[in-house]
Amino acid sequence: MIRPLSFLLIFILSTVASQAQWTRDSLLLRTIYDEALARGEAYDNLRTLTKGIGHRLSGSESAAQAMKWGQSVMDSYGADRTWIMPVIVPSWTRGDLAEASFVGSDGEIYALHITALGGSVGTRNDGVIEAPVLTVKRLDELSVDSDVDATGKIILFNRAMDPVLINTGAAYGGAIDQRGNGASVAAAKGAVAVLVRSLTHALDTLPHTGALRYNDEMPRIPAAAISTVDASWLAATALADPDAVVRLQMNCKAFEDVEQGNVIGEWTGAEKPNEIITIGGHLDSWDIGEGAHDDGAGVVHTLEALRILKAIGYQPKRTIRFVLFINEENGNRGGKEYARQAAIENAETEIVHLAAMESDAGGFVPRGFRIDADDAATEVVRGWSELFDAYNVHQFRRGGAGVDISPLKSLKPRPTLLGLSPDGQRYFDFHHSSQDIFENVHKRELELGAATFAAALVLLDQHLPSPK
Amino acid sequence: MIRPLSFLLIFILSTVASQAQWTRDSLLLRTIYDEALARGEAYDNLRTLTKGIGHRLSGSESAAQAMKWGQSVMDSYGADRTWIMPVIVPSWTRGDLAEASFVGSDGEIYALHITALGGSVGTRNDGVIEAPVLTVKRLDELSVDSDVDATGKIILFNRAMDPVLINTGAAYGGAIDQRGNGASVAAAKGAVAVLVRSLTHALDTLPHTGALRYNDEMPRIPAAAISTVDASWLAATALADPDAVVRLQMNCKAFEDVEQGNVIGEWTGAEKPNEIITIGGHLDSWDIGEGAHDDGAGVVHTLEALRILKAIGYQPKRTIRFVLFINEENGNRGGKEYARQAAIENAETEIVHLAAMESDAGGFVPRGFRIDADDAATEVVRGWSELFDAYNVHQFRRGGAGVDISPLKSLKPRPTLLGLSPDGQRYFDFHHSSQDIFENVHKRELELGAATFAAALVLLDQHLPSPK
Repeated sequence: MIRPLSFLLIFILSTVASQAQWTRDSLLLRTIYDEALARGEAYDNLRTLTKGIGHRLSGSESAAQAMKWGQSVMDSYGADRTWIMPVIVPSWTRGDLAEASFVGSDGEIYALHITALGGSVGTRNDGVIEAPVLTVKRLDELSVDSDVDATGKIILFNRAMDPVLINTGAAYGGAIDQRGNGASVAAAKGAVAVLVRSLTHALDTLPHTGALRYNDEMPRIPAAAISTVDASWLAATALADPDAVVRLQMNCKAFEDVEQGNVIGEWTGAEKPNEIITIGGHLDSWDIGEGAHDDGAGVVHTLEALRILKAIGYQPKRTIRFVLFINEENGNRGGKEYARQAAIENAETEIVHLAAMESDAGGFVPRGFRIDADDAATEVVRGWSELFDAYNVHQFRRGGAGVDISPLKSLKPRPTLLGLSPDGQRYFDFHHSSQDIFENVHKRELELGAATFAAALVLLDQHLPSPK
Repeated sequence: MIRPLSFLLIFILSTVASQAQWTRDSLLLRTIYDEALARGEAYDNLRTLTKGIGHRLSGSESAAQAMKWGQSVMDSYGADRTWIMPVIVPSWTRGDLAEASFVGSDGEIYALHITALGGSVGTRNDGVIEAPVLTVKRLDELSVDSDVDATGKIILFNRAMDPVLINTGAAYGGAIDQRGNGASVAAAKGAVAVLVRSLTHALDTLPHTGALRYNDEMPRIPAAAISTVDASWLAATALADPDAVVRLQMNCKAFEDVEQGNVIGEWTGAEKPNEIITIGGHLDSWDIGEGAHDDGAGVVHTLEALRILKAIGYQPKRTIRFVLFINEENGNRGGKEYARQAAIENAETEIVHLAAMESDAGGFVPRGFRIDADDAATEVVRGWSELFDAYNVHQFRRGGAGVDISPLKSLKPRPTLLGLSPDGQRYFDFHHSSQDIFENVHKRELELGAATFAAALVLLDQHLPSPK
């Protein structure tokens, strides 16, 4: 028989214990943020990656160089061992020619700001396509049943991102079908090329690239991103001048796949070395700009998490794998290969993938986390909110932890997945454009992101229950 | 006798009622944010204020022009009546000469990036001061008891803002004594001029101005802000070369006070017209840059709150006063005069000042509110947190609602004071410098701030209890 007093005692003791735990965690977070803000190396690392190496398209020489650099930084920061996990990646080049112009029925020519979508074919023999323009806002305007005549035309997809959505990622998601599927949908209706309004809220003349996916059953037609200002202008002007045409010329091209790889650094856990927590960002980037926010920030957040925890003398309980994924932008083959190997480890060894966390939403001020987890783990993560309040980290929302780690969802037991959520208001101003450069990343914001990432890693390591 | 069932009924009915209220508030907020993001005029107004009028130092012609513009916008947005409340403001000019250079003992000359602190005297007859440099980090190093010999020297105050504080405003507050009191403290020890490390985390060559306060019992010596890069360099270099000197020359100057005023627009409440809610920002700015974040953002937030509420067909219960304060930067005479008049209204009429809210922390993404209020009103405001969660507005912290409205604290009953809290990580990069310009304000962030400001105004109007 347990007396009522015993219940009271247990309650008091557990309250005292959880209070003591809270105090320990709170001090640990303060130490992590102090290290990041007073002696941080994330910003200098980002400068080296973006200015020293530059953009890092999968298959490129600079991506290979970045792999070497990332591994050397992990070694210098004291990872127990580092290696490259080979991944076969696509090899596509933008070429040096992407021109489009509007030719009015009066013969006047206006140059348009475009760039090839990633993976697009060039124009035939790198020659000029000349065709009238048809503007649509939705893919279903070109459905097989629709009586729209797209034959021989260049389709302008001109649906803007919705400005009233607070979450810019949701606005991006609401417009991305044009970029991903527009070319094949238009080709099915006989179009000869597509121009896709750049995915940004900014009204400017910057084209923003990004991956398209050709449907193998349709002809592959050239596809380019066009700046928001040009898209709006072209839609209005082409409507007013039906005899006008657009000329398009691009020499982008796909080559044979090549071998590159995920860069991995491991730090063995002291108490439960068979339980793996993965933390990472992606090393590849688009080939315009410098991949500074996307995803140089995630790369240096990952490296900085390792550095900070070593600097403050932390010893993880679980084994931490710091991973710089390859090929997020145009294939996600790095993330898929990582999950494939993890499944093999799960099946053939004692290793369990407990959790994974990524940073792939920019180097802006951290606002919280995206959580892909079961209810119990979600509650554990939401329980951190009071600890993070002093650091202005308040969002603990479900869903969308990140592209690189999402293939891990197929593992059993399914790992807890987290994504760092920086403020998103400025992200799409730069994303996939020539302005995604070092100068557009803010030092303190980057450091706060690194600290928040490192803090979450420690809290996962300390508090995430082991699988039953 | 009340039966238990009655309690249950009351509980259910009040829950239903409060749920219905929550739904109404929630829809109202969504309407406000939609209006700000889809049809906002804050950004265009800021362009007019900063690019069309420019900076707006108290007493200047451009400040007078901004007053006229602000009043005309309030009229065009449908304020019931608008007027200017006269305020006598200081008149000080920076002049066209502020030069400093380091002259090494080897005769080499290095130009330093400086600008006069607001209110500083010039050098005597606009001539050159040449003196050795003494670097200090704390004012108490120059206390009357200290044996530091500052006689005939130029004092460099070189204490940096603390990088580990998450709240950059707190870091600013921890270093501002150097700027505010440094000149008089140094003069008391015989110094001939002071250079004050610019109040920013950024390491760059921009000097940041700001007000100093001379102690009337001490000689007035020239005081200039020096960029962070120059301050660090000068401290190290002067230490290594004790025979070096700094040359300083400035022709800033104070003139007679002049009359300008607070711009006020009133919208009469439908239910409790004697209860006033004040909402505002300050129209004046420093005379370098364009006063875009400080406080052009607050000005256009205020105007936009009026426009939004008219656009969505809102009818306030209480009387709203939209106020563009004058002279926040170098005297706060606008805020003081507004409170003096409010006290007279309180004493001599039925009018009660229920609440006041200001925006004076930049045009960045809104994070929450600073609350200066009693416990009951603080709880009312904190009760909004669930409504604001969808807009990523999470901070409801006590203290520091703002300089312009703070004199209202002396009223009885004391009004509830709120300050809009935008993200502060970038604010001091621009604050009081030549880079506080329109181009450094982000359209969506500005619009989100305006919507948050307007939403809080509506919630105050709807839910703040009347004084007993």
